[in-house]
This record gives sequence, structure tokens and C-alpha cells, in this order.
Amino acid sequence: MSLSLNQWTTRRWSVAEAVDGCVRHGLEAIGLWREKVAEQGLAESVKLVRAAGLRVSSLCRGGFLTAGGLPGEEGRTAFARALEDNRRAIDEAAELSAACLVMVVGGLPGVRPGEALPAGGFTRDLAGAREQVAEALAELAPYAGERGVKLALEPLHPIYCPDRAVLSTLGQALELSLPYPQEQVGVVVDTFHVWWDPRLFEDVARAGRRIASYQVCDYLHPLPEDVLLGRGMMGDGVIDFRPITQAVLAAGYAGDVEVEIFNADVWAADPDEVVATMRARYEDVVLAAP
Amino acid sequence: MSLSLNQWTTRRWSVAEAVDGCVRHGLEAIGLWREKVAEQGLAESVKLVRAAGLRVSSLCRGGFLTAGGLPGEEGRTAFARALEDNRRAIDEAAELSAACLVMVVGGLPGVRPGEALPAGGFTRDLAGAREQVAEALAELAPYAGERGVKLALEPLHPIYCPDRAVLSTLGQALELSLPYPQEQVGVVVDTFHVWWDPRLFEDVARAGRRIASYQVCDYLHPLPEDVLLGRGMMGDGVIDFRPITQAVLAAGYAGDVEVEIFNADVWAADPDEVVATMRARYEDVVLAAP
Repeated sequence: MSLSLNQWTTRRWSVAEAVDGCVRHGLEAIGLWREKVAEQGLAESVKLVRAAGLRVSSLCRGGFLTAGGLPGEEGRTAFARALEDNRRAIDEAAELSAACLVMVVGGLPGVRPGEALPAGGFTRDLAGAREQVAEALAELAPYAGERGVKLALEPLHPIYCPDRAVLSTLGQALELSLPYPQEQVGVVVDTFHVWWDPRLFEDVARAGRRIASYQVCDYLHPLPEDVLLGRGMMGDGVIDFRPITQAVLAAGYAGDVEVEIFNADVWAADPDEVVATMRARYEDVVLAAP
Repeated sequence: MSLSLNQWTTRRWSVAEAVDGCVRHGLEAIGLWREKVAEQGLAESVKLVRAAGLRVSSLCRGGFLTAGGLPGEEGRTAFARALEDNRRAIDEAAELSAACLVMVVGGLPGVRPGEALPAGGFTRDLAGAREQVAEALAELAPYAGERGVKLALEPLHPIYCPDRAVLSTLGQALELSLPYPQEQVGVVVDTFHVWWDPRLFEDVARAGRRIASYQVCDYLHPLPEDVLLGRGMMGDGVIDFRPITQAVLAAGYAGDVEVEIFNADVWAADPDEVVATMRARYEDVVLAAP
């Protein structure tokens, strides 16, 4: 396993700056975000990571596939638009030779991330939203397969179930992936999202080589007011990383370990210091004891 | 099934006032809190609920059993103290003829509810904390059984895993209950805590008559800054209640349905209006379609 910088951790950096940062700090891999790649330009981003000799451990992110659960024409249009956007994301992941495209599948149809519930125009049909994700996956997996891209289904902490991901446990993500070849659909193990799960170790073992990405960051307590920013530097929260790392290794995962932190303080800090801290904490807190 | 007022919903009311309120609004059952019972006096509380002809659908709450996971003498003392407090809670539940004693099992050892992580003196050993709960249950279940009290293990939303309950899913609570007769140990289904769980319907069916309490309130989105207060009046959040109610009924549950809302606005409102709204929403939103 080798450490990778998910570029949202150093959010102020462009792709070019983050690639430079990785090289400067001796990292071999980087996780990229579509927004940042679009700002840099896709072709230019490809050129930069190749010239630097970096692996792209993931592209973040596809998904938001559930709006099709809205009734009638609105639902059909939203579903078609979501599929189209995800095909573009797959194309970009292929260009970048990303190890996977991370999929954040979306919340209840009509509920917008981080926003108050709309007065109308949303649905509480959680089972239906989950069906939508399965339906979208059936469309997208073959498209990804033809382009050599692996879709990585990311279960999110249940706190994000209303607005970001109706996929809430590793077991659930794994079930959804099973109908497809493991080269086409895998799962993400992100410590922040799954650390509490009583079935975690069982499901990590069961997932085996379906694990497409291992992401680490801590779970802060108490969470900040904007719960999206509750992701902390490893060692600053409540997670015991070593047993999880050990289980992921034992399951056969041999990819990079991405550090993806959404945190106002981390974003405000000097990115070079953040990467230095991240390296030190990775050694001290994340790596399984020998 | 019959509607019950969990008295924390009308937090300003004493036991005497809440009992009066239930009678005034035609309710047949009440869920009591130990703090409020202590303020009123246990014997007086028993007299009040009997005179009013109310069932006590639950006593809240026992638990906080994990501090024994702290090392050495501190852990042993904390464990003994927790057991002693829970025996008192069982005694009180017996006096009140409560249908169950709700158990909120506690978070990571040394992490205090709602407070920042202490600099030292806490542990990240989640598996160990869960073991502690099983150990405490082995001590308490027979004691409860001898007094005709049923312990109701409450899985809490994973957001409360650090500080309030390492019991995070209904399936996990059910596993923990299985070694004991169902008259001694059951589980709570609280919609706020379990609505997101992809295994919910499977586990409700599996729990069957182990379901000792069905509590309803909505899951607000976004959550307020103090996540403990994210419990809303049914219909104000994201939960689709009817399928859950239907599943709980189909599992064989025939007890009362408690409404337990922690919410600053609800607590600020006139308690009589809160109970009236609760009755109306129960009919409109919670009851399974015929």
C-alpha cells in the first residue's frame, strides 16, 4: 500500500499545484476531482500526472443517480441527465487512467445536498431511490467496462442518507456490485463512513478484491455544524485505524491509500504543512502494526 | 397499537402534569423518564399513573455501561457503578410496572455525551466497548428477569456511536438479545435511529416479538447544530413511516407507540398543543394504511 493525496485535502491547490506537491513530498499517487480537472483542462491534467509519474488512485466523482425517482417527466429527464453526466465522468476516468471512478450515488430524490428540505418536489421513498441506483448501475457498468474504468460504489455515513447517498453500508454497496465483474464495479472503504458498522470486518473480508479504494480520515467528535466538514486528520478523532487497515490488507487490497479530508481548518492551513502532517500521521496512526 | 406520550416530548411537564395531559388528550399510555420520576418521587409517580389508569409503555433509561472499558481501577469502579445504577433503574421499572426499561448502552469509554473528546482518558476500542455491553447484560438480564422487567436494547443512529451508544443497528441489538429469554431482553425500534438501515425490514421481521418498544419521531434535515435535537414531529422530516409501522405490526408487535421528540421548538411550544399535533400526525403519517 502506498499513500495518495486526494486533492480535496489540499483544496486550494489546482491540479498542477497538487501534482507538484505530491512530487515534492515523495508521493506516488493522487486522487483527482472532476471540478479541478475541468479547471486545469482534461488533456493538460493527463499530461501533468504522466510527466510526474503519478498514479491516479481515483477520480471523484460520479453518481447522484436518484433524481429519477421524482414522478413523471421531471424524473425521466433527471435520470437521463444523470446518466449522461456519468458517462462523461467515465470518459474522463479513462483518459486519466484512474484506478476507479468514485460513485456517490445520491440521496432522496429532490433533496439537495446540504440544503433544507424543499416544501414539495421531493420523495421519502428510500427503497425506490435505492432501486434507481441499481437501475442506473445496469446502464453504466457496461459502458465503464468497455472503457476499462472501474466504478467504485461508496457507502456514505447514514448521516448523509437524506441528501448525498442512499448507500449506507459496505454490505449494501457490496450486494449492489455483485452482479458485475469486479473489474467493472467495486466498493470504497472510507474509514469516516464505515468505522461504526458492526458488520465492518465481516463485510471487508467478504468484499475481498472488490475493494476498489481505501480512503482514510478521522471522524471528529462532536461533528461541526456543517456535518460535511466533520472529516479530520487521522488521530484527531475517534477512529482506531490499525484494525481496519489490517482487515483491508488481509482482504487482498493492494492499491493506494487516499487521504481525503473535508475540514475548514485543514483547508485554511498551508497545503505543504497539511501534506507533511498527513505523511506523519499515516505512518503513526494508519499503517497496520508489522 | 395505541399512542403513548414519551414525557420528554413535553419536557416542561412534571410526571403529574404529563399524566394529566395524557388523560386530557385521551391517551392510554405514557413513557416516563427516571429524572422526572425522581423529582416527583417514585411512590407518588406509581400512584399517579395507577389512579389515571395509564400503562407505562417504557421507563427511560438504563445503560451507559461502557466506561468499564477504561484501563485498571478506574474501569473496574466505573463498571461496578454502572451496574449498580442499572439495578436501581430495574427496581424502578418494576415498581412502575413499565413495559420495558430502555437501554442506551453508552459510547466509547471515556467519551462524555455531547462533549469534546478529552485530551486523554478515553479509548478508541469500539470492539472492546461492545464486549463490555454484552458483559454487563449478562449481569443485568437475570436481575431484570427476577423482577419481571424487560430490558429493551436501543440501537442509536451511528452519529451517536462515539458518545451515546456503540449499539448502532437493529441487527446488532437483536444478536445481543438472543442469548436471553425474550421476556428479559428485547429491542427498541426507534424510527429516527433506524430509518436509513438497508437491513431494517429484514431485521424487524427477524426480531418479531423481541420488539419491546416502537418509538416514532421524524429525522430532520439538515440536522441542527446539536445533533441530539434533530428529532422532529412526524411529517416534518424525511422518514416514510407507514412501511415501518406495517413491518413492526407484521412482526407481531402489539404494544404502545411512543412519540419521543428532542427538539428545541417542540420544547418551547405549549405542551397541550404539542400533544394535539402529535395525535393528529400519528393518524395522518404514522399509522399503516388499512
